[in-house]
Amino acid sequence: DEFLKVFSLNSNPKLAEEIADHIGVELGKSSVKRFSDGEVQINIEESVRGCDVYVVQSTSNPVNEHLMELLIMIDALKRASARTINVVTPYYGYARQDRKARSREPITAKLVADLIEKAGADRLITLDFHAAQIQGFFDIPIDHLFGMPILSQYFEEKQLQDVVVVSPDHGGVTRARQLADRLKAPIAIIDKRRPQPNVAEVMNIVGEVEGKTAILIDDIIDTAGTITLAADAMLDSGAKEVYACCTHPVLSGPANDRIDQSPIKELIVTNTIPLTEQITSNKIKQLSVGELIAESIKRVHEHRSISTLFN
Amino acid sequence: DEFLKVFSLNSNPKLAEEIADHIGVELGKSSVKRFSDGEVQINIEESVRGCDVYVVQSTSNPVNEHLMELLIMIDALKRASARTINVVTPYYGYARQDRKARSREPITAKLVADLIEKAGADRLITLDFHAAQIQGFFDIPIDHLFGMPILSQYFEEKQLQDVVVVSPDHGGVTRARQLADRLKAPIAIIDKRRPQPNVAEVMNIVGEVEGKTAILIDDIIDTAGTITLAADAMLDSGAKEVYACCTHPVLSGPANDRIDQSPIKELIVTNTIPLTEQITSNKIKQLSVGELIAESIKRVHEHRSISTLFN
Ligand SMILES: Nc1ncnc2c1ncn2[C@@H]1O[C@H](COP(=O)(O)O)[C@@H](O)[C@H]1O
Ligand SMILES: Nc1ncnc2c1ncn2[C@@H]1O[C@H](COP(=O)(O)O)[C@@H](O)[C@H]1O
Repeated sequence: DEFLKVFSLNSNPKLAEEIADHIGVELGKSSVKRFSDGEVQINIEESVRGCDVYVVQSTSNPVNEHLMELLIMIDALKRASARTINVVTPYYGYARQDRKARSREPITAKLVADLIEKAGADRLITLDFHAAQIQGFFDIPIDHLFGMPILSQYFEEKQLQDVVVVSPDHGGVTRARQLADRLKAPIAIIDKRRPQPNVAEVMNIVGEVEGKTAILIDDIIDTAGTITLAADAMLDSGAKEVYACCTHPVLSGPANDRIDQSPIKELIVTNTIPLTEQITSNKIKQLSVGELIAESIKRVHEHRSISTLFN
Repeated sequence: DEFLKVFSLNSNPKLAEEIADHIGVELGKSSVKRFSDGEVQINIEESVRGCDVYVVQSTSNPVNEHLMELLIMIDALKRASARTINVVTPYYGYARQDRKARSREPITAKLVADLIEKAGADRLITLDFHAAQIQGFFDIPIDHLFGMPILSQYFEEKQLQDVVVVSPDHGGVTRARQLADRLKAPIAIIDKRRPQPNVAEVMNIVGEVEGKTAILIDDIIDTAGTITLAADAMLDSGAKEVYACCTHPVLSGPANDRIDQSPIKELIVTNTIPLTEQITSNKIKQLSVGELIAESIKRVHEHRSISTLFN
């Protein structure tokens, strides 16, 4: 279909390539560079007039650079008469700033939603928002995909015995439940609480892990503090071995070393964020969301083509 | 006045301090840091409820970082019930992307205007927009200040004899005329043209420079290619000596070396952008716009206070 175009910016060139391959199109020709003073310079090198354009860009680190590339690209596409501008952000950054936890905090996840809409996006395709509520920050349609089935398939194929799926905090219990359903396994929850202010947190495990293979699941692993402490707690409670998985491998700062030195046997992640050169631990395995996103794009585009028939 | 607050972000801390001093207030307490993964973390550490807040931030290099700090700060101030949010961007970045010079180009100067408004700004105070038309990109009131009188005063005090004020290109003639009026001097224009595509530009000087002290004036000096070639052309045409001045010292890439090795005697700039450590040439002199901006803020605030009386 000559009216479906996929463009890549600088965050996920390899994933964008995979998505285009699955759909059966060439990546759109464009370049994203910097002027001498650091300003973003975008050139779209083919016509997009009347096209349904999909722009692949995670707002991953460096988040402000990636976000501005995206906004400027949307502006350029809009002025170049694209029919629809569909933003594919496999990883939606700033998602943890999704509420005022303290006075005078910004809600940057909402700000970013506003900026993307204001620039001119018509639709957003993303995976595992940090909170489902972020969908409500947008007025445009959102296709909210999930990394869990891809992670689940990996563990199913491994045929691990006597598994317990563990949520490292209260926020992730639903996600753990979903993975447990697929693996036909029970769940456990790490229940952290601070008995008094300025007293160390107490880690209590709700559920049975003794003698079992624990699979920790989270949406984002950033500095890997939570997940590696959780892994320690699993072994302390008699788990036989510990695996971990997440959709978004942010893996900043000490993450690589923490994981490498932890009792985690394998950390399974997806490629919503590419692994940087600093991520050298061979415990980390990356699975692709390329086909998942491509299928979603095809579904969206099918409906558009049908609606075009009646225009 | 306890309802006037000035906050600084990371681009111009010294200028913000000067502005607050001139107004006679302390800088508002806030911190702008980064989370481990590079996301902006802003803390406003005092109440702004009901206040008229002025946020000082140039969108200078690193422009995307500075812009996102500004947008997130505006979001935080809005949610903290500031009465008005007044953005002071001494230098407004992305201003050169103010029109579609080629097909499928973005108009990033308009996009940035939209982003600042969408975030919640009520007013913008700035100096020397690259094009006066950028005012029309905004729907909020703009206080558009000029660096020229500050530059002019420096040259008046120097009491240079037999001056000619020179615009390095067609776009800057009005600015050159204004400086010339103040210095009671004639103007000249460097008239570049390309006789045929892919043939070197020809530099022709319109006006009399022989035996004179030439003062080149521009709004932005970025890589300093234009200004140093103009300086060479002045000497080739018999000028006795060459000074240069501009409001916004972007000074990226080769700028420092080019200026240092050029025939320019002094380059007078303002502090809308602080000079980085890479700028070591002692030909460069920086004048402050702190008082100019402070006076503008005082004028705005006076009117607000009066209108409050009648509320
Ligand atoms: N990039 C970030 N890195 C670490 N913490 C963050 C980041 N963004 C927001 N936060 C904080 O994380 C908390 C929300 O995390 P959560 O409880 O997992 O939703 C909030 O208190 C935020 O201040
Ligand atoms: N940051 C930048 N550095 C260098 N050139 C730029 C920059 N931003 C925009 N431009 C280009 O500069 C031209 C406009 O400059 P001007 O003719 O001085 O208004 C446009 O063709 C832009 O593509």
